[in-house]
Amino acid sequence: MKVLWIYAHPEPRSLTGSLRDEGLRALTELGHQYRQSDLYAMHWNPVVDRSDYGLDAASRLLVAGESEVAYDSRRLSPDILAEQEKIEWADVLVLQFPLWWYGMPAILKGWVDRVFVKGFGYGLTRDDGRVRRYGEGKLAGKRGLAAITIGGRQSTFGPRGINGELEQVLFPLLHGTFWYTGLSALPPFVVHGSDRAGAPEFERAAKELRARLETLGTDEPIPYRPQNGGDYDEDLVLKPEFSGGHTGLAVHNLRTSQPG
Amino acid sequence: MKVLWIYAHPEPRSLTGSLRDEGLRALTELGHQYRQSDLYAMHWNPVVDRSDYGLDAASRLLVAGESEVAYDSRRLSPDILAEQEKIEWADVLVLQFPLWWYGMPAILKGWVDRVFVKGFGYGLTRDDGRVRRYGEGKLAGKRGLAAITIGGRQSTFGPRGINGELEQVLFPLLHGTFWYTGLSALPPFVVHGSDRAGAPEFERAAKELRARLETLGTDEPIPYRPQNGGDYDEDLVLKPEFSGGHTGLAVHNLRTSQPG
Repeated sequence: MKVLWIYAHPEPRSLTGSLRDEGLRALTELGHQYRQSDLYAMHWNPVVDRSDYGLDAASRLLVAGESEVAYDSRRLSPDILAEQEKIEWADVLVLQFPLWWYGMPAILKGWVDRVFVKGFGYGLTRDDGRVRRYGEGKLAGKRGLAAITIGGRQSTFGPRGINGELEQVLFPLLHGTFWYTGLSALPPFVVHGSDRAGAPEFERAAKELRARLETLGTDEPIPYRPQNGGDYDEDLVLKPEFSGGHTGLAVHNLRTSQPG
Repeated sequence: MKVLWIYAHPEPRSLTGSLRDEGLRALTELGHQYRQSDLYAMHWNPVVDRSDYGLDAASRLLVAGESEVAYDSRRLSPDILAEQEKIEWADVLVLQFPLWWYGMPAILKGWVDRVFVKGFGYGLTRDDGRVRRYGEGKLAGKRGLAAITIGGRQSTFGPRGINGELEQVLFPLLHGTFWYTGLSALPPFVVHGSDRAGAPEFERAAKELRARLETLGTDEPIPYRPQNGGDYDEDLVLKPEFSGGHTGLAVHNLRTSQPG
């Protein structure tokens, strides 16, 4: 398989950096090809602006519309085009980052903001007029894995943990970004307690990461519901009979939804 | 009241930009003071790096630890110190932004990442050794309002809407950032369908924003549970009797939690 590894940590000597090194070694040993976007090393610019689309200073910037025009006419900034080319090459995207304020570091959020322009990440329609999103985007057929280092303890991200159940805290990434664009979202790879990790904890995490990479192509993705499969009505609201009247983020995942 | 308005949109002539203008006018007319952080106009740097903490290139960067040392010794980068000073001045923080990939634009996420360093945004302990977070941080007593423009329709962010219930999608900001640092999280101000808004939709949104700003000091915050009030056990897991055995993000909010 072909893997694009997007890595976002300012310190290569960190636990996160060491796991990146380990992960890339493992991919090679497993016979996979990889390419890497080391966002800090690349000095990646995370800020969406008119220069992304070659738009002059006088024109009003409509982000969605201008990004689509620039995508269609190949006028996107070269750094964006380079990332899109890597994504098209890959079978699997790995986003590796430390959890900061319950989300991606800004440099990685801005990789998503800038690279997933209209026409590439969203805004595609089918012949029947329905929008291709949630299972049906341009990236359908590829897989997405979030590999996350977290300072807090595992219990605090459990079903009633104070920080929120991790898969729901990550809903904007797993469902709203991976699944939205068509990527099958794999269950995240998570290392807890990273702020207090020593050599034994690193060895265990490295071993667990290798195990996950061995099954990268066969692991079952999170079973989010497709938009256009009949579960949602014309207002894109889940029909109540599919969730037993329940509400909340869990209803969009077939594993956690409770049918009536 | 004193209001710090943090604004993150690349186009002042956007709907979001016009609402910012309207909001600041309304604050003045209501007799409030305000200061603004217009992140695009300021060319705000959203990327956490060693230069934030005056750390030399040879030393290993431990983000939490180094940020705390730099905060305590006033060696933080001047742009971070300036934002912290504004926050300390303010009674209310307004974060105004377009929802991009179900979260803040990178420039705003990086405002949080860089400004809320250890010792300021997290990592404070009480005399009894318990950590001051979720209702008890340094910013306790202040209020936080997210003012968000969203392209999608309101139905898609409802209790069973395909994009996820909005208050749960925003959990990383409302609970994980506002409430974590002590800010009382107000119900977000939201404009839906912003991509298709014309003059009548703007007029309505402007009127609704004014109404919300009139009650900025008296609106009931989202009733998230305090960490140290007895609802959570020593592992920071909600005691099951407080949620009737239910799980998921809703259990941390007294309004949506279902007691046993």
